[in-house]
Amino acid sequence: MTRPLNLHPDRLLPADPAVRAIARDLYGSVANLPIVSPHGHTDPSWFAKNESFGNATELLLVPDHYLFRMLYSQGVRLEDLGISGHEANPRVAWRILAENYYLFRGTPSRMWLDWVFAEAFGMDVQLSGETADLYYDTITEKLATDAFRPRALFERYNIEAIATTESPLDTLEHHAAIRESGWNGRVVTAYRPDPVVDPEFEGFAANLKTFGEITGEDTMTWEGYLNAHSQRREFFKSFGATSTDHGHPTATTANLTASEAAALFDRVKDGNASAADAELFRGQMLTEMAAMSLSDGLVMQIHPGSFRNHNGWLFENFGRDKGADIPTRTDYVHALKPLLDRFGNEKDLSIILFTLDESVYARELAPLAGHYPVLKLGPSWWFHDSPEGMRRFRHNTTETAGFYNTVGFNDDTRAFLSIPARHDVSRRIDCGFLAQLVAEHRIEDWEAAELAQDLAYNLVKKAYRL
Amino acid sequence: MTRPLNLHPDRLLPADPAVRAIARDLYGSVANLPIVSPHGHTDPSWFAKNESFGNATELLLVPDHYLFRMLYSQGVRLEDLGISGHEANPRVAWRILAENYYLFRGTPSRMWLDWVFAEAFGMDVQLSGETADLYYDTITEKLATDAFRPRALFERYNIEAIATTESPLDTLEHHAAIRESGWNGRVVTAYRPDPVVDPEFEGFAANLKTFGEITGEDTMTWEGYLNAHSQRREFFKSFGATSTDHGHPTATTANLTASEAAALFDRVKDGNASAADAELFRGQMLTEMAAMSLSDGLVMQIHPGSFRNHNGWLFENFGRDKGADIPTRTDYVHALKPLLDRFGNEKDLSIILFTLDESVYARELAPLAGHYPVLKLGPSWWFHDSPEGMRRFRHNTTETAGFYNTVGFNDDTRAFLSIPARHDVSRRIDCGFLAQLVAEHRIEDWEAAELAQDLAYNLVKKAYRL
Amino acid sequence: MTRPLNLHPDRLLPADPAVRAIARDLYGSVANLPIVSPHGHTDPSWFAKNESFGNATELLLVPDHYLFRMLYSQGVRLEDLGISGHEANPRVAWRILAENYYLFRGTPSRMWLDWVFAEAFGMDVQLSGETADLYYDTITEKLATDAFRPRALFERYNIEAIATTESPLDTLEHHAAIRESGWNGRVVTAYRPDPVVDPEFEGFAANLKTFGEITGEDTMTWEGYLNAHSQRREFFKSFGATSTDHGHPTATTANLTASEAAALFDRVKDGNASAADAELFRGQMLTEMAAMSLSDGLVMQIHPGSFRNHNGWLFENFGRDKGADIPTRTDYVHALKPLLDRFGNEKDLSIILFTLDESVYARELAPLAGHYPVLKLGPSWWFHDSPEGMRRFRHNTTETAGFYNTVGFNDDTRAFLSIPARHDVSRRIDCGFLAQLVAEHRIEDWEAAELAQDLAYNLVKKAYRL
Repeated sequence: MTRPLNLHPDRLLPADPAVRAIARDLYGSVANLPIVSPHGHTDPSWFAKNESFGNATELLLVPDHYLFRMLYSQGVRLEDLGISGHEANPRVAWRILAENYYLFRGTPSRMWLDWVFAEAFGMDVQLSGETADLYYDTITEKLATDAFRPRALFERYNIEAIATTESPLDTLEHHAAIRESGWNGRVVTAYRPDPVVDPEFEGFAANLKTFGEITGEDTMTWEGYLNAHSQRREFFKSFGATSTDHGHPTATTANLTASEAAALFDRVKDGNASAADAELFRGQMLTEMAAMSLSDGLVMQIHPGSFRNHNGWLFENFGRDKGADIPTRTDYVHALKPLLDRFGNEKDLSIILFTLDESVYARELAPLAGHYPVLKLGPSWWFHDSPEGMRRFRHNTTETAGFYNTVGFNDDTRAFLSIPARHDVSRRIDCGFLAQLVAEHRIEDWEAAELAQDLAYNLVKKAYRL
Repeated sequence: MTRPLNLHPDRLLPADPAVRAIARDLYGSVANLPIVSPHGHTDPSWFAKNESFGNATELLLVPDHYLFRMLYSQGVRLEDLGISGHEANPRVAWRILAENYYLFRGTPSRMWLDWVFAEAFGMDVQLSGETADLYYDTITEKLATDAFRPRALFERYNIEAIATTESPLDTLEHHAAIRESGWNGRVVTAYRPDPVVDPEFEGFAANLKTFGEITGEDTMTWEGYLNAHSQRREFFKSFGATSTDHGHPTATTANLTASEAAALFDRVKDGNASAADAELFRGQMLTEMAAMSLSDGLVMQIHPGSFRNHNGWLFENFGRDKGADIPTRTDYVHALKPLLDRFGNEKDLSIILFTLDESVYARELAPLAGHYPVLKLGPSWWFHDSPEGMRRFRHNTTETAGFYNTVGFNDDTRAFLSIPARHDVSRRIDCGFLAQLVAEHRIEDWEAAELAQDLAYNLVKKAYRL
Repeated sequence: MTRPLNLHPDRLLPADPAVRAIARDLYGSVANLPIVSPHGHTDPSWFAKNESFGNATELLLVPDHYLFRMLYSQGVRLEDLGISGHEANPRVAWRILAENYYLFRGTPSRMWLDWVFAEAFGMDVQLSGETADLYYDTITEKLATDAFRPRALFERYNIEAIATTESPLDTLEHHAAIRESGWNGRVVTAYRPDPVVDPEFEGFAANLKTFGEITGEDTMTWEGYLNAHSQRREFFKSFGATSTDHGHPTATTANLTASEAAALFDRVKDGNASAADAELFRGQMLTEMAAMSLSDGLVMQIHPGSFRNHNGWLFENFGRDKGADIPTRTDYVHALKPLLDRFGNEKDLSIILFTLDESVYARELAPLAGHYPVLKLGPSWWFHDSPEGMRRFRHNTTETAGFYNTVGFNDDTRAFLSIPARHDVSRRIDCGFLAQLVAEHRIEDWEAAELAQDLAYNLVKKAYRL
């Protein structure tokens, strides 16, 4: 039986009629604001080359580990979906998704996909085994048209600015190509130095060598290594970067003397660091990056607490980013103290903290951000960029950190078409939260209206200096 | 003043009228489904012998540590309630409960008891000091009738299947008697090997000896010990077992080589293991049990994180299971990795994880179950089989694990008459959660209707292979 | 643009109309009950001297680290607010608060301040840059009148009893002066021995010396030291104390033999204790204090889990209590066991547990308090004395601990005028929670009415023996 696909205009707004009416008004005032996407993983080559996206499977299923991890958890083979270069018939892969679409009931993926299906591709029946081919054909045909090329979609969805994420070893050639093309969409880079900062990153020693070749610095010395970072950060700034990003296993920071740091660097630079040295080095580098940020003005983002590639067999056979990154308990209070002891009171430095461990929102993050001038709270992240996670974030942080120590929304995605869908979810949830505060007479309606604008648009621009 | 006892038909459904209306419909469609109870602690001798339950105190108060721990926390002496074989007048004990019944306001115990009082015994006034004797007499009289014998209640409450829990040292004689009696109620056992797996269990060394006698294996050798498990698991399967259960202090697993494991076994088998060896052995045995499950098809349940018998004085004077088991913070991400590295990607193995530490729902359990084929999430457990705990479970796990990596409801009780009451609570809460999703236009009404059936009936049968 | 200031009569009550109607009735029945404030940090000299409070900045901004930490987090200099004795024009400081008042949207501070502005000072426009001077002048003028002296406000807000908190080294001269004045307001002290119990407290060794001088005991010996405590506790009792309070970094307790304890005391008494000895000594002293409480009847309060003075630079330049105390993860299950092994089953001892780590509510605190006769749960504390924190407290603890293992509300403040505002918040939130239980048919309306009285008034008097 084929079911209609509905995107109800009140979706995700609170159920109580009076609260919903307030939320609907607030949402109406921000629904069409431009999208500012300061942190994400879209591919700059899309905008440089402006080529068509291919077929439905290639666009929506293969790059989205949220989708295939759920299918995998229920026994679907990744080979059959064409993941990691495995040969698979894309139509057959799409049918597997369609037949298992019921698995996503109640998940954010379902909401984003339905939005994409209805809004972007005009589908009006739900995805299921019966409608799999209709979907595949419709989407694939549209993708072949000019209206579905990357730049056209960028403009259609009113993206004011978007940041990609690149390694210091990246040439930024696609960013250069965008600039040279004359297209005026604002696509900037962000400096993500994990491959040359984390001694446990695959190929760390080789990466250091390349880092030296690119910069002309002697990256086998502590001084040359730091110079290489400084130089590369300036290069990234020249391509619009306003931020750095650091995805460490923990939030550990360190504040060694220069000679201790140099000695540590000598111990880790060959890629054979002990676990303790690797952790200490990552921690010291957060503090070094903060020092550089104070000088060059790049906003610093810290994304700790993910146990990457938890599934050993999967990592060996399918590689990174296959849905097996698992959050772990994360301490911030002790971990950040060395960095905060040195830079916590600097008014010209801005550090945005993220977490995958919600138990720290009320206990650690909101009190830290509600006190230290350098700290701001990033939005609920990763699989938490979900309605329930967003609600908990506001309920747990607002009373101690306020709204103005938060930084708007990050979509943090490599799934291009989910960007407008995710920002829409965020705006709906924030407006619902504000509506509840109004309905409980905790803020006034005019304050909620100001806050709705701030949360959807103003705060992100200010926090990321965009 | 005597107060009426009401079981409102809308109890536990969301307060908002529109959401409640949706929830009421959903609940109506599942309220009368058969009960499948795959994990619990009822006594198989009840069904084997089919004897009357005795008096109100013996049926409802003495076996229910939820009740007497609350009374104890407020200064009532356990001796006065007749706990652990202490002599007490059951009518006087009942009066103590009745006079202190106000202590249970807002607790699940209150709801289950009111359900039992009204539904099972037809009471129409609330329990209090004034009505204590009326209650005692009415309940005790009814218990003497045939309609209140175990098998009659089993049938009256539409129990399709129920699992008890037995040690490998149990003869399963009651299960044999049930089978031989010709009664066709489905009562199966479950394999709970803690007494011969946990070197810190009371009497571990003696238990190992008995284990050898029962099985004819040399349980003083690693190989014979493993053989004894295999053999005993087959014996349990012959009495309907479809699952094993493991109640460890932590979720630690290990994956030693065969020779390391044998050496470890030699160190722990005399019951004088160090704490570290005991923990390692329990961890290794989870992995061994997983290996056997892959071979014999028994579903594996892991129940970690309880600090058993926390109150030393009470344990010495009244024994185990007296309301002094206290949950502790529990790690899953690191703890389960050795087992998952070996078996995480097996499609024919099923491991159901439980927790008493709700902070891991969104952070660890949902992401693990939303990725690994072998993992499923057990329902909120123990004192968390409560309305608030059930709601938090759904709010915290659904977005990442979906509904289909969960396994329906466990009542996990030794209080027989609370079984239908607990399943009723679970169905009401799940329907309320689904109704909220519908009201917020996150799923369609027909999807909620399917999900309500799945959560109340289908998922548990599938997950437990019942 | 000047905005009206409204205190809506339904503020903080649930939004659903039916639930709100129930909550409104419950709240109406407790709104005017006397205030019992068993734990806080008001200055007894206020009531002893009954002098005017000065100006708006001095009364409301300078003593309230909730306010200036938020301003500080957004770049305001504490010097400009006149914090810690820095010279600042109080009117200019007030303007800074007023111009930044939007930062407090959604925070408890905003609600308390608005209550103070409207209820205490009759303001009818919102605080903003435009109204800063109007506020400053109106408040400062009123503070000069007799109606705004401390005793008049004490009576106006119907305070039945209030406890201050003093160190054993305090002479209690202000308490003596209150008594001698003939004024009949009930202001009692509480025994807070951290300065002579925590080897890491500033000036610990000197404090021990003073402790000896005050008591005439040889506080350089373990026996004399304990005697000094006993004696000083009696002295505090003579000024109405019914409780002690202990603000430790963790909940660690210890149960050493007398000779071990004496040896430990010898190692720490010179103020050069190792971190491990300091922690052990604090833990041992909790157990010693429990022993004394069993004998002298003082109720014991344990406030663990705050990382005090996290911001090193701020601490050096502005001192303690400047908004940089950050909560940390806190264990109770293992930490309290030594104390509970010794005293957990005593019916005549009462220990009230607080936490800043909400993840322990359902997991550890409610199960402990729902079992051990000595334990009760203090209300959500510190920045958690907030609407959201209060709601989470009830949702997470009630099902396992019930209401009757909790102890009513603590305002825990040094901001005098926030006391009635905070109690009002607490009563509203509790009545909202009870109303939800009624609306979901989990308790009866008459039970909610009794509970509302208990939570607002009866439980606190009973728990604190006031």
